[in-house]
Amino acid sequence: MVIVMAPEATQGDVDAIVEIIAAAGGSAFVSRGVSRTIIGLVGDIDQFSTLNLRGLRGVADVMRVSAPYKLVSRDNHPERSTIRVGGVPIGPDTVTLIAGPCAVETPEQTLAAARMAQAAGATLLRGGAYKPRTSPYAFQGLGEAGLRILADVRAETGLPIVTEVVDAHDVDLVASYADMLQIGTRNAQNFALLQAVGGVGKPVMLKRGMNATIEEWLMAAEYIAQRGNLDIVLCERGIRTFETATRNTLDVSAVPVAQRLSHLPVIIDPSHSGGRRDLVLPLTRAAVAVGADGVIIDVHPRPELALCDGPQALVDGDLDELARVMREFPPLLGKTAAGDALATV
Amino acid sequence: MVIVMAPEATQGDVDAIVEIIAAAGGSAFVSRGVSRTIIGLVGDIDQFSTLNLRGLRGVADVMRVSAPYKLVSRDNHPERSTIRVGGVPIGPDTVTLIAGPCAVETPEQTLAAARMAQAAGATLLRGGAYKPRTSPYAFQGLGEAGLRILADVRAETGLPIVTEVVDAHDVDLVASYADMLQIGTRNAQNFALLQAVGGVGKPVMLKRGMNATIEEWLMAAEYIAQRGNLDIVLCERGIRTFETATRNTLDVSAVPVAQRLSHLPVIIDPSHSGGRRDLVLPLTRAAVAVGADGVIIDVHPRPELALCDGPQALVDGDLDELARVMREFPPLLGKTAAGDALATV
Amino acid sequence: MVIVMAPEATQGDVDAIVEIIAAAGGSAFVSRGVSRTIIGLVGDIDQFSTLNLRGLRGVADVMRVSAPYKLVSRDNHPERSTIRVGGVPIGPDTVTLIAGPCAVETPEQTLAAARMAQAAGATLLRGGAYKPRTSPYAFQGLGEAGLRILADVRAETGLPIVTEVVDAHDVDLVASYADMLQIGTRNAQNFALLQAVGGVGKPVMLKRGMNATIEEWLMAAEYIAQRGNLDIVLCERGIRTFETATRNTLDVSAVPVAQRLSHLPVIIDPSHSGGRRDLVLPLTRAAVAVGADGVIIDVHPRPELALCDGPQALVDGDLDELARVMREFPPLLGKTAAGDALATV
Amino acid sequence: MVIVMAPEATQGDVDAIVEIIAAAGGSAFVSRGVSRTIIGLVGDIDQFSTLNLRGLRGVADVMRVSAPYKLVSRDNHPERSTIRVGGVPIGPDTVTLIAGPCAVETPEQTLAAARMAQAAGATLLRGGAYKPRTSPYAFQGLGEAGLRILADVRAETGLPIVTEVVDAHDVDLVASYADMLQIGTRNAQNFALLQAVGGVGKPVMLKRGMNATIEEWLMAAEYIAQRGNLDIVLCERGIRTFETATRNTLDVSAVPVAQRLSHLPVIIDPSHSGGRRDLVLPLTRAAVAVGADGVIIDVHPRPELALCDGPQALVDGDLDELARVMREFPPLLGKTAAGDALATV
Repeated sequence: MVIVMAPEATQGDVDAIVEIIAAAGGSAFVSRGVSRTIIGLVGDIDQFSTLNLRGLRGVADVMRVSAPYKLVSRDNHPERSTIRVGGVPIGPDTVTLIAGPCAVETPEQTLAAARMAQAAGATLLRGGAYKPRTSPYAFQGLGEAGLRILADVRAETGLPIVTEVVDAHDVDLVASYADMLQIGTRNAQNFALLQAVGGVGKPVMLKRGMNATIEEWLMAAEYIAQRGNLDIVLCERGIRTFETATRNTLDVSAVPVAQRLSHLPVIIDPSHSGGRRDLVLPLTRAAVAVGADGVIIDVHPRPELALCDGPQALVDGDLDELARVMREFPPLLGKTAAGDALATV
Repeated sequence: MVIVMAPEATQGDVDAIVEIIAAAGGSAFVSRGVSRTIIGLVGDIDQFSTLNLRGLRGVADVMRVSAPYKLVSRDNHPERSTIRVGGVPIGPDTVTLIAGPCAVETPEQTLAAARMAQAAGATLLRGGAYKPRTSPYAFQGLGEAGLRILADVRAETGLPIVTEVVDAHDVDLVASYADMLQIGTRNAQNFALLQAVGGVGKPVMLKRGMNATIEEWLMAAEYIAQRGNLDIVLCERGIRTFETATRNTLDVSAVPVAQRLSHLPVIIDPSHSGGRRDLVLPLTRAAVAVGADGVIIDVHPRPELALCDGPQALVDGDLDELARVMREFPPLLGKTAAGDALATV
Repeated sequence: MVIVMAPEATQGDVDAIVEIIAAAGGSAFVSRGVSRTIIGLVGDIDQFSTLNLRGLRGVADVMRVSAPYKLVSRDNHPERSTIRVGGVPIGPDTVTLIAGPCAVETPEQTLAAARMAQAAGATLLRGGAYKPRTSPYAFQGLGEAGLRILADVRAETGLPIVTEVVDAHDVDLVASYADMLQIGTRNAQNFALLQAVGGVGKPVMLKRGMNATIEEWLMAAEYIAQRGNLDIVLCERGIRTFETATRNTLDVSAVPVAQRLSHLPVIIDPSHSGGRRDLVLPLTRAAVAVGADGVIIDVHPRPELALCDGPQALVDGDLDELARVMREFPPLLGKTAAGDALATV
Repeated sequence: MVIVMAPEATQGDVDAIVEIIAAAGGSAFVSRGVSRTIIGLVGDIDQFSTLNLRGLRGVADVMRVSAPYKLVSRDNHPERSTIRVGGVPIGPDTVTLIAGPCAVETPEQTLAAARMAQAAGATLLRGGAYKPRTSPYAFQGLGEAGLRILADVRAETGLPIVTEVVDAHDVDLVASYADMLQIGTRNAQNFALLQAVGGVGKPVMLKRGMNATIEEWLMAAEYIAQRGNLDIVLCERGIRTFETATRNTLDVSAVPVAQRLSHLPVIIDPSHSGGRRDLVLPLTRAAVAVGADGVIIDVHPRPELALCDGPQALVDGDLDELARVMREFPPLLGKTAAGDALATV
């Protein structure tokens, strides 16, 4: 950490800080500039966290120089991780396609969507039984009945299930059905929920909060990791900006940035960021090309009847192009589509 | 609702929509323009919500023309509401000062902060026992022990308590101690929590999500209201923008906008938005002047030792000025400081 | 246009509006809903623009339903345009690589950078002689001396020149050297400059303002088009958001959105958006994959000595990978790298 | 400045930097931490600006610790400045009301608006003859004819004139009529224009760019100051955020922040930020209460006929309340309304 002193700080202010740091077991190096003095702190950052340095006399600013996350940081785990979900890999060597309906509505709709997903090369099935909706008057999902439908469709298709959990006290229930738990963008700082999924022993897909910096996203992952669960996949899904032509602004730069800071896999959700079907395929191509370790996509057999996010679901006619993207783009990145990776086992 | 057709939409597309609307029990009025046709829908908006109009052939855009919230809307309740918390009013006739420590740390610290709050004219005590923190390594609050301290300080000072709840399943416990439950900015779309506080029969202070539009904030209030609880106070606390000189950007315009759209009282938190002590008093003056129905402010007897948000807490020397603001500004708005309102009863 | 009346609007308010619209030569269709009345306006939007409809009694909102730009709109020109710069195409069939130094510093540096650009497959040379800098104390460019260097390097390499103009009254001078004029992000709403480049008869590359919506960007293009110049290439270069890990957030979704709204070609600048060399190649891949009609990239023979934006310039070791991206990705989009397109002529 | 080394940086990397700094005439102090080494640089920041430190081997980050602006900084000029415009003060002791029509349309409209402004206590007249408009099809102002109208109204009313200039080459012309030149939000980084107004010897009102950080705003002021003109008034007018209920988000915190960083006066424009008449008076109260040194407000005798921004103009019925705010609020801040300040001379 670096402390920047105010121009009017006195020698006494500087001495007092040096003493406080020493008392906390650290060392302080003073650099006296023309207009400002800076103090470099050496020691464990956690030692200093309760000192409230910013409140000390003469202090103008305190800058951190190392990351506040540890378990998910690449500093301490230089090799990038591969997470396995029901045997399906998500990691640096593959591009995993996760697809399915935004919300589970009926057994028929879910099975039809799963077949569409498979036709496009998906190796994991997405589908929501609990839907966090902005309006209390909107469809909130089928709950456990939806989980049962997902389990039946898994039995039928062989696709492991990714599904969202929205309340800490549903975690055990959802985990008893799901192969991977999803934390949605609105719960990206619901710390009680993060801790609960950290303790349940299932892989977690952590969507970036639509207002979260990359650092905050990694801190949310740290909450999960700290409970002993490092099977975390980060999912970029668009951030909130001033632009209104798209629902959110997909931040593709976040993929290489997060992959450099953390060893966790990073995937992209091109359906929810744009909120428009005509953007899904271009953004899927961009996602694979920027180096994402996977994509998660809404498909629906009859989107005009969908109870949730119908306007962004891919339809039958889009699947060939999606399959082509998953086939042709990963090799250019030195990656294998996860479907092909499994097929060749 | 208004449907805007694409330039290439056919007469058949328009007819199909008119039919669908009629089948749903509504009426559709077609206005054929030079380059575009628009269709005005008349009927209950809820009738149309499952129709997925945006997915129909030839539709370019669908615009809502009425608000999606109802119970909290001023359309249906033109008079602005006054909420009472342990007898203390928050509403159009008063400016209520809520003050106290960001986090409850010890009985002594909490009592000292409460005395500071009273000295400045506060009639409600704030203090957190459960703290949602970005880092899992930061102080997370004392939990129930903190609630007991708050109850003791209430007994000592007579100040009703406002305290945060962060997990749906703690709601009953927190409500058994608190006079008002606070929902923090990170939980502004934690719908399970919103529904839980909607059912517990205590007033709720709902902070605006730092990334929430005013409409989303009112929809979050609607979640609470829908469970039968209309004792809701909205609290603007800054939104996330590109500016980094302040922690968040206090959106004072949100006060008159929300007061016009909703009958609920609207207060401002000038401590957390700026994140800097030197901004708290100027922003408090702006809050009262723009017409806020109250302010909620961090005070701490020794901020340099605070376990949470010390840099923004007011200290002893600031209290006289805070008291002056609370005394001199409300009358210029035709309001009474809530402390004076109680004193004259 | 659609006028939404306030709930309290009277029949008289509605009648008055119908009359005003009729007097302006348009027609008004009234749809009376349960809680709101809406009025659809039919006629030329320009007729209504001076009416200040929002200020009329009883009006709650006025919504536009057609785009405010015309000459650049795809509505009136469904086929996407190809612009030629010194013979080099930028358009739907190609992916054009524009590369060179951020700033022209010396003849040697500029020539070396141009050779690097050519080695990577570039067919146009970028280079700034006038640099808009946030600080008045930073290097502001060589001015006309820089233009002369660019002209010499063009003579030596055969690469047409793209260079920025920052002042309306330099437009003739810059146009006398350049093959394409660039409008930078800080001048995206400098209307005097936009009009000046509209009148000079050279192709224009219009960077998106870092705070401009896609609609405002197209309106800026309309300013140029209105002066008779339709040889415009739109360039997405990142928008300002709350994220600080990157200088700006590259909005790749803007490419398919703008291509759908406008017939003009759309390219991406992956160097300035990220501001970091390690992001340039991933973002270049994403740019080509999302469907951009070209990319513009900083290269520098010795970035550690660059007078401007050195940290983001590609170096020699990156060129092979850039060349590979330009060779392998465009065919997957049904496009040809512009270099190959020229080579096969 | 502080250089933060990457974890993998070697001793040789550190030594190389120390040497480079010494060669540039500075000193480097090395603090070796557990995981990172930091190097504090002492010397004139301008010495280091061409070194491209970020590009050196082993460097992870470079942090500035002092402000990049000088002439406008309060560090070098601790006392806050008062600027005089035709004898009217704008500064720490006063609250100056500037009012008038958004655009000059006719002599009658301008005179009527000026009389309204005076009735509310204004001591300066605003009015635009050159209007930067998003659409090329919108009214662009009367140009020099508008300036003549302003001059006539000044002669009639005695109110000095504040008017916008949008092109560097109109500066002399506009300055020959105006008492104060205004730089609009879209030209906040039009450096050619900033330099031109820096050289013309008239006070300048510099609006904050709607996407400018406070630091960038002060750097824009530095461009003007560097040409010898320190008669600059900063004007906060709202920044662009995700919120769409208001045109922009008025950043009242920017007033105390800018007043602390710079000695220049800071005023607020409550008309353009909200874009809605019903917000103007609440935001004016907030502006004065937060400590702004003045406000600039749109008034129009018949806003429903205004050619520009009619929906936000105050009308006759609002003037009494505006006059009351200007009379009652400044004394609570220890300030005098500028009108009263003049009256008592």
